[in-house]
Amino acid sequence: MRSITGPGVRQSLEILQSITPLTIHGVESGSEALDWTVPDEWHFTQAWIADRQGNRLVDTAHSTLHVVNFSVAVDGVFTAHELAPHLHALPEQPDSIPYRTTYYADNWGFCLTQRTLDNLGDGPFQVRIEAQRVPGVLNYGEIHVAGKRPQEILVSTHICHPQLANDNLSGMVLAAALAESVRQTQPELSWRFVFVPGTIGAITWLAQHKATLPPIVGGLVITGLGDSSPFHWKKTPGGQEWIDHLMSLVLAEAVPEHHTILPFSPYGYDERQYTSPGFKLPVGRLSRAVHGTFAQYHTSEDNLDFVNAESIDQSLALLERVVASANCDTVYQNLSPYGEPQLGKRGLYSALGANVDPGRLQMSLLWLLNQSDGNTPLSCIAAQSGIPLSELHTAAGMLVDKHLLQPVRHASENRIS
Amino acid sequence: MRSITGPGVRQSLEILQSITPLTIHGVESGSEALDWTVPDEWHFTQAWIADRQGNRLVDTAHSTLHVVNFSVAVDGVFTAHELAPHLHALPEQPDSIPYRTTYYADNWGFCLTQRTLDNLGDGPFQVRIEAQRVPGVLNYGEIHVAGKRPQEILVSTHICHPQLANDNLSGMVLAAALAESVRQTQPELSWRFVFVPGTIGAITWLAQHKATLPPIVGGLVITGLGDSSPFHWKKTPGGQEWIDHLMSLVLAEAVPEHHTILPFSPYGYDERQYTSPGFKLPVGRLSRAVHGTFAQYHTSEDNLDFVNAESIDQSLALLERVVASANCDTVYQNLSPYGEPQLGKRGLYSALGANVDPGRLQMSLLWLLNQSDGNTPLSCIAAQSGIPLSELHTAAGMLVDKHLLQPVRHASENRIS
Amino acid sequence: MRSITGPGVRQSLEILQSITPLTIHGVESGSEALDWTVPDEWHFTQAWIADRQGNRLVDTAHSTLHVVNFSVAVDGVFTAHELAPHLHALPEQPDSIPYRTTYYADNWGFCLTQRTLDNLGDGPFQVRIEAQRVPGVLNYGEIHVAGKRPQEILVSTHICHPQLANDNLSGMVLAAALAESVRQTQPELSWRFVFVPGTIGAITWLAQHKATLPPIVGGLVITGLGDSSPFHWKKTPGGQEWIDHLMSLVLAEAVPEHHTILPFSPYGYDERQYTSPGFKLPVGRLSRAVHGTFAQYHTSEDNLDFVNAESIDQSLALLERVVASANCDTVYQNLSPYGEPQLGKRGLYSALGANVDPGRLQMSLLWLLNQSDGNTPLSCIAAQSGIPLSELHTAAGMLVDKHLLQPVRHASENRIS
Repeated sequence: MRSITGPGVRQSLEILQSITPLTIHGVESGSEALDWTVPDEWHFTQAWIADRQGNRLVDTAHSTLHVVNFSVAVDGVFTAHELAPHLHALPEQPDSIPYRTTYYADNWGFCLTQRTLDNLGDGPFQVRIEAQRVPGVLNYGEIHVAGKRPQEILVSTHICHPQLANDNLSGMVLAAALAESVRQTQPELSWRFVFVPGTIGAITWLAQHKATLPPIVGGLVITGLGDSSPFHWKKTPGGQEWIDHLMSLVLAEAVPEHHTILPFSPYGYDERQYTSPGFKLPVGRLSRAVHGTFAQYHTSEDNLDFVNAESIDQSLALLERVVASANCDTVYQNLSPYGEPQLGKRGLYSALGANVDPGRLQMSLLWLLNQSDGNTPLSCIAAQSGIPLSELHTAAGMLVDKHLLQPVRHASENRIS
Repeated sequence: MRSITGPGVRQSLEILQSITPLTIHGVESGSEALDWTVPDEWHFTQAWIADRQGNRLVDTAHSTLHVVNFSVAVDGVFTAHELAPHLHALPEQPDSIPYRTTYYADNWGFCLTQRTLDNLGDGPFQVRIEAQRVPGVLNYGEIHVAGKRPQEILVSTHICHPQLANDNLSGMVLAAALAESVRQTQPELSWRFVFVPGTIGAITWLAQHKATLPPIVGGLVITGLGDSSPFHWKKTPGGQEWIDHLMSLVLAEAVPEHHTILPFSPYGYDERQYTSPGFKLPVGRLSRAVHGTFAQYHTSEDNLDFVNAESIDQSLALLERVVASANCDTVYQNLSPYGEPQLGKRGLYSALGANVDPGRLQMSLLWLLNQSDGNTPLSCIAAQSGIPLSELHTAAGMLVDKHLLQPVRHASENRIS
Repeated sequence: MRSITGPGVRQSLEILQSITPLTIHGVESGSEALDWTVPDEWHFTQAWIADRQGNRLVDTAHSTLHVVNFSVAVDGVFTAHELAPHLHALPEQPDSIPYRTTYYADNWGFCLTQRTLDNLGDGPFQVRIEAQRVPGVLNYGEIHVAGKRPQEILVSTHICHPQLANDNLSGMVLAAALAESVRQTQPELSWRFVFVPGTIGAITWLAQHKATLPPIVGGLVITGLGDSSPFHWKKTPGGQEWIDHLMSLVLAEAVPEHHTILPFSPYGYDERQYTSPGFKLPVGRLSRAVHGTFAQYHTSEDNLDFVNAESIDQSLALLERVVASANCDTVYQNLSPYGEPQLGKRGLYSALGANVDPGRLQMSLLWLLNQSDGNTPLSCIAAQSGIPLSELHTAAGMLVDKHLLQPVRHASENRIS
């Protein structure tokens, strides 16, 4: 079973290695990590509650959610009254098992459906949790794909929730698939994918890299991308970073009617850590269903029925469009900036004049020539003109071939403020 | 009777001294005050119009509004034709006596209801105004409450309208009550309350302080706060001063459905003087009913029936909330800025993880830690997060106690531009 | 017949000289003009298509649009199949002759109604175009009206479309009429009117002036001003130039319900050339009907029935208001900036005080005094206050007479960014 540490995490990362060759790092328990300490590993075997006859009433053999994650070991007989504070259910969702954790307290407990709780009987109950916290390592996965430029885009996903499909299995699978996809190309920017236990994993990764932080020009925390909700981009704290503009553009182009831009909030996932004022990394978050706003969130209902292959495919396609868009977000300089260059003699303009509609390619050429003053990235021209970034990129290539345009830098190099 | 100068003003300021120990200043008639000259005192006894039989048709014994304020003395018999240009009524409000003044012209007149005017008869009329303009002083009241910081908030109210309840008695009473309330605490900022005759009083006060102007970081002209209209904040000329942001926040928190923000206009009350381009003090205005927009304005209908105790109490409560909000609008620095500090080990975070809702206190803590980069005042965090300023202030105190946050300056020290 | 070069252009410019004394310039064919080469002159006599019996089926005697403008000479017999690629019609507007050009390709063709095309018969056809391209000059007209200041406003109109009334005859006539109107006054700014063949003419003009570009602080390309559509101001590329603010204000004042502000786009008329990144002149465009959005555009329906005298008069009045507004857009400095100066003693304020409504003139005076800090142009005060620029200008004159205000510069001297 996955948790923030232990064999379940290692096993999960090894499975992801079959998708893309990520490296599995381990940081020793007890190490300092910023304001935190790397915890012990959690080794879990089984947990159950039985009645006097030995009938298993709650058993992690049926769902790993039944045990409060990171519980300490228990073996004893409890009255109903003694057991009560250790039982967690959802009265308003009587058939769902909640997901709860106790990483930083020596506590234990069980999660169960309200229906089971109501029929648990009077006890006494035999209770057993076979688990121990033992020194070891905290694991995280990482893969760096070198692009033509050293500037990096960070993709971070958490890997600690056991069993839950959308949050967070979808993020793990998609980060690995995207890493492998990016690895097949030579991207313009470099990409770094990190697979970390929530909070402590991101904190540990940041602690490991604090001395020489990679040149991260934008980042996406990804999770919850397997359901069919609209996409949600949660902006960086300032909301005006290059990655914010890029994500707005990509979502507007790809899923114009099926996305929402959210303001920053310091609650959520590991964007909280990356954007803390000491680091201030320009990291936002891409999700479909938003944590805390859907009934399945952190319950046994976030299962394989809640996610679907089509949504995951769409999400991967969207992420690949982010890569493609980042690749071509170049700032160009018009090399013939005085008046419009004569496109006709270069075969780039219709010979017959005075048509009503200049055609899309010619509009792209005109926008590029007018706006390419050495300061305006392609993504800005796309946003202003309404012409898709990919079309502008194609047209820019034609103008570069004709020596009318010259790339001067990548858009991420002037971080928009 | 009150006017811009004379015994009525002195008597009014002395009454206010029973609320708060303000100082009464006097500036000699004939003194230069910026582009103006301090006028003589106006000593008024009585004024009336009588018919041939000696019946008093109009008499200041019934309303001080009956005489045009600052009229010169008159004693004589006038035909209806001669008297007509000296009579002022409101044809569209036939039962209201208008309020008119003649401070800077040697003129005289009477204000009366249209109904009285219509029945005045054919004359001749005996007319008497017992009044004289004599050298003396222009009085204004002032009280300074020293806070922990020298920066000041100015509260200015005019005191020259005789008899009118909302404009301006409500302002006088509330400024005095607020001064006394602030005096009972040790506020963070200093506060200065000035009680001045309209226009010439503010001009005289500015002239007195021009050489060494106090460090005013924000100001409120207050008047018209006794009726039950929504609150109106009239912004400073630029509209982007710290006081504008603070007032918007306080009104949004306290009376979200019962206030309006108005753009600056150079007409109105003494904000005209404070914001003149030579001074450019960041002063706006807080009122309920807005001058010139309600039928009672500058008429005998602006009386004790137009105002009510509940509205005055609400207005005082709002002003006290401005004081409290100004007190706690601090800029903090996160002392553990790399990642989130581990709140759990400091007792500031729930031990049981993965709940849907983090709770309001924890949201406050997270917002404070994420945004406290040494540049972001509490009021900005409140506006961004939707969490009331007072809650953030409480949470900030907890983080200061745990050495996670440190105040670095007051928000007013970086005037927002 | 007009084209980009040739006797038709010269003849047109000579007719405009009867309105205003513009200078006709000629630049030799073959001259380099930025990235372009000045073309030969086009000398055209006639063009027709006849059937085997010699019946003229299409003949430029009936419409100059029948020949593709700048066609090379043709004389021969063609089958229907051979002729087809040289024929242009509009299937969806079967009674309109389209307007087409072939300036930069050795091509030829005919434009005709779809109805004529459908009944053309099977051929063969006798085809004749009597035309030649001969070295000569490219002509453009220019008139400079010196104002009190050297800063210029550029008015540019294209002159190459034969026969079309709204686009572009209305622009030619209005530019000439406005030039003559401006010449009758001594404007504050200087004005330069250029009458150029589309694209190549603007490019040639820019090439001629590239070395020492006049100090153009704003510019208007004008065309399509003869129909009754709402006015359209197409903004400069940044959209924040002084001319953008001025045009927004003038349109809001003059035709509040009958205008639209359009964002910049690099398609359209010669604003494309003036705003190219090498020049970046602050030039927008004023039109009524917008090119490409109305059925008559570039067809025989853009004739004298489409335009009307009333609309042309309105357009001229609007342009003259632009001149008047530009003339008075001054930045003033308040010479008595501490508090309000006492207007009453200068005869600028009503003697009787406490009226509800201060009156429009007094509001103008107060706005001017409060805002004239040496940085705020009259047009900004007009936009903020809602008081028409002309009223503020009158009031400013009164304050200048009383030595309360002093002009410090023209608004165009701090280009708003």
